[in-house]
Amino acid sequence: MRQMILTGFLQAQNCSVLASTWRHPEGRTDFLSADYYQHIARVLEAGKFHLAFFDDRLAMPDMLGGDHAHTVAHGIRCVKLDPIVVLMTMAMATSRLGLGATYSTTYYEPFHVARLFQTLDHMSGGRAAWNIVTSVNDGEAMNMGHEEHLAHDLRYDRADEFMEVVLGHWDAWEDGAILMDKAAGRFADPAKIHRLDHRGAFFRSRGPFTVPRTPQGHPVLIQAGASGRGREFAARWGEVLFVAQDSIPAARKAYAEMKAATTALGRDPEKLSIGRLTYPVAAASKAEAEDKMAVIEAGYDEVDGLSLLSEAMNFDFAKRGLDEAFSDADIAAMTGIQAMRNRVLEAVGPNPTPRDFLRVTGRGRPHNALVGGPKEIADVLEEWFAARACDGFVIAASAIPGTYEDFVTHVVPELQKRGLFHQEYEGPTLRENLGLARPERGWWK
Amino acid sequence: MRQMILTGFLQAQNCSVLASTWRHPEGRTDFLSADYYQHIARVLEAGKFHLAFFDDRLAMPDMLGGDHAHTVAHGIRCVKLDPIVVLMTMAMATSRLGLGATYSTTYYEPFHVARLFQTLDHMSGGRAAWNIVTSVNDGEAMNMGHEEHLAHDLRYDRADEFMEVVLGHWDAWEDGAILMDKAAGRFADPAKIHRLDHRGAFFRSRGPFTVPRTPQGHPVLIQAGASGRGREFAARWGEVLFVAQDSIPAARKAYAEMKAATTALGRDPEKLSIGRLTYPVAAASKAEAEDKMAVIEAGYDEVDGLSLLSEAMNFDFAKRGLDEAFSDADIAAMTGIQAMRNRVLEAVGPNPTPRDFLRVTGRGRPHNALVGGPKEIADVLEEWFAARACDGFVIAASAIPGTYEDFVTHVVPELQKRGLFHQEYEGPTLRENLGLARPERGWWK
Repeated sequence: MRQMILTGFLQAQNCSVLASTWRHPEGRTDFLSADYYQHIARVLEAGKFHLAFFDDRLAMPDMLGGDHAHTVAHGIRCVKLDPIVVLMTMAMATSRLGLGATYSTTYYEPFHVARLFQTLDHMSGGRAAWNIVTSVNDGEAMNMGHEEHLAHDLRYDRADEFMEVVLGHWDAWEDGAILMDKAAGRFADPAKIHRLDHRGAFFRSRGPFTVPRTPQGHPVLIQAGASGRGREFAARWGEVLFVAQDSIPAARKAYAEMKAATTALGRDPEKLSIGRLTYPVAAASKAEAEDKMAVIEAGYDEVDGLSLLSEAMNFDFAKRGLDEAFSDADIAAMTGIQAMRNRVLEAVGPNPTPRDFLRVTGRGRPHNALVGGPKEIADVLEEWFAARACDGFVIAASAIPGTYEDFVTHVVPELQKRGLFHQEYEGPTLRENLGLARPERGWWK
Repeated sequence: MRQMILTGFLQAQNCSVLASTWRHPEGRTDFLSADYYQHIARVLEAGKFHLAFFDDRLAMPDMLGGDHAHTVAHGIRCVKLDPIVVLMTMAMATSRLGLGATYSTTYYEPFHVARLFQTLDHMSGGRAAWNIVTSVNDGEAMNMGHEEHLAHDLRYDRADEFMEVVLGHWDAWEDGAILMDKAAGRFADPAKIHRLDHRGAFFRSRGPFTVPRTPQGHPVLIQAGASGRGREFAARWGEVLFVAQDSIPAARKAYAEMKAATTALGRDPEKLSIGRLTYPVAAASKAEAEDKMAVIEAGYDEVDGLSLLSEAMNFDFAKRGLDEAFSDADIAAMTGIQAMRNRVLEAVGPNPTPRDFLRVTGRGRPHNALVGGPKEIADVLEEWFAARACDGFVIAASAIPGTYEDFVTHVVPELQKRGLFHQEYEGPTLRENLGLARPERGWWK
């Protein structure tokens, strides 16, 4: 029987994806300590979550008004730690939970990213995943030595070649290459270790790669591209996809299209797992959950949404009044996340206002929060899952660590009772738990 | 009373700095597991070591004969894991041991390195150190997207500017910048968080940096530059220096010069700790230690030395027979570690042979190993320390984990008995244990 894949959506920063969590009355404030992240990891593993993963950006959102004073004053995702270092605190506190982190294809060398994630995969015993992103805004570019970010489609061309280098390096050592024959002085078999010698349009990397193949073959590949070019990229490379859709019909359509696209590329559509971003607010009863939601909503501040929209669109939303329509030129200048911009245009028409963006995207709010007791939340998750609108859920926090604790306490047992979610981990590696076969060398060619 | 600083010299690879350790009969072979590194960390912390640090290169040594077949067959440092990921396994298994890793100034963006190490410093509770290197050979360049490595002095000019960016970012958040006032919705004080806006000859990085100041201010800076330009760099930036000298008179001279150079730059010479690379082979008695040394020597293979010399000199040593003199053109083409090349020229004259290089540098062997029981080894360490030839020792392994276990069991108690080494850690941060003051913002300007 088909079962859900559950993922914890995490941030190595002062708040969750919801900027207001730092000021939640019951929220933990020790986000600069290992224990903060290790506690979350233990909660998710107790709840048999398949995966926890960190998003990332290489700059704080400071585009609104062209200054960071509001960002740090309001705590709008202004602290951003290196996600791999933080992930390792969680790896050492767990033994089955999958561990993913975002690393950009835009500002690093592929040799570095290949080595980093392959090492993570070894040190975690085969539990690593890499969320592949292209970087979206000028703040990141300017921190990383450039003047402005790359054009949208160009950065995906670059990302395609980046993947060829990373996967080429990951394939360098065949299984069984290490002999470890102390007596004969033979460490490894040279016939089973291959130099890449990549010379492409964007990258050069020679090798031989310095990290042997891992217990699960190589890290699991996560992708969340949602624009046309982004979906093409996701269908080619992704093993776990994250999506954000507002309705079952829209999500079913996108799901079917993505499965068809990956099938067309010769990949097994059942080996591509699509998870939907979800904000659950769970409690023992619906009434209690509604009380929790009231506390969360009281934390909302409009500046959070405007600042995060400016970051995501790579455009300063302070240039217009809250109810002033963006001009066609404004819309054209929004060069960040194309799928998010297009969603607003489809809902509102060609000249939306900042307030329209706030409303349609829910930026800064727990968008479409699922508020309820075990039954209410499980009902909705089951409906989406059974309709093949998704293969699982990516749980975003509106309180830390409360959201994760409440979900594990109240919702997971209900899903397990219904047979919708596994009772136990299938094995030590992330691929075993996701039902993904160990990849063949060269599968991606 | 002045006391020694002890550092464990570690490698995130299939062997120690001594390539033959993988085939040591008692050596552990599970170097791809977290437990391998965590065991070493626990041993060093039980022995009150101040610091453990990983060296690193971004390529396996494959220059000898222009191919990696010999490298992997003989296991010559051919596996190289990402040192930060491996270091985090050790951070989570200890609470006082300092934790250092090498990261190159040649192939990364300073924003990335600043974020990585500042995050490590938070997650370890203020125990991080960064070993600053410039990358030395073409193999690294070719893995990281370039055709050949930078000229020697140019890469130090670049490294100087790299440090200005890293330290500039580390200074971005003043102490006390975080307010965490939930009720008022004030996360941090904008007046205490500063954007760098760096635009230099080699780097651009805007900020604001996304990681607050750490418990120890910022990570401790390690340096091992030994050429003229390298020593100038070390005197300016280093807080812990690693050196390799063969005699007390030579070491005393270099020590005095380095302390004078750092004093001339306005820094306190007592706040710069100089550690000498040392291969101890310790046991309960001298006879037992000699037996251990015989096992280590039996593991030696000349190809290890020739391969590692080729890597370090960035020159293929297979171009000459073992007893054939290098031409002046050969010597000029050795563009790698200048201090190592110069040491051979000083000892042998202008046209040494490959065998001369093997002998003088001891590459591939536990060079000048200190073999003995507790008394013999402590006597030598005390002599060097008391002569101000160094401030402490960097312990290299000829067996893993045997070297560390033996040193902690046999030598550390003897040093403590003599009052030469601390009985207990001074505090939770590495700076407290090293006797370094918490740095002022802008100390480096």
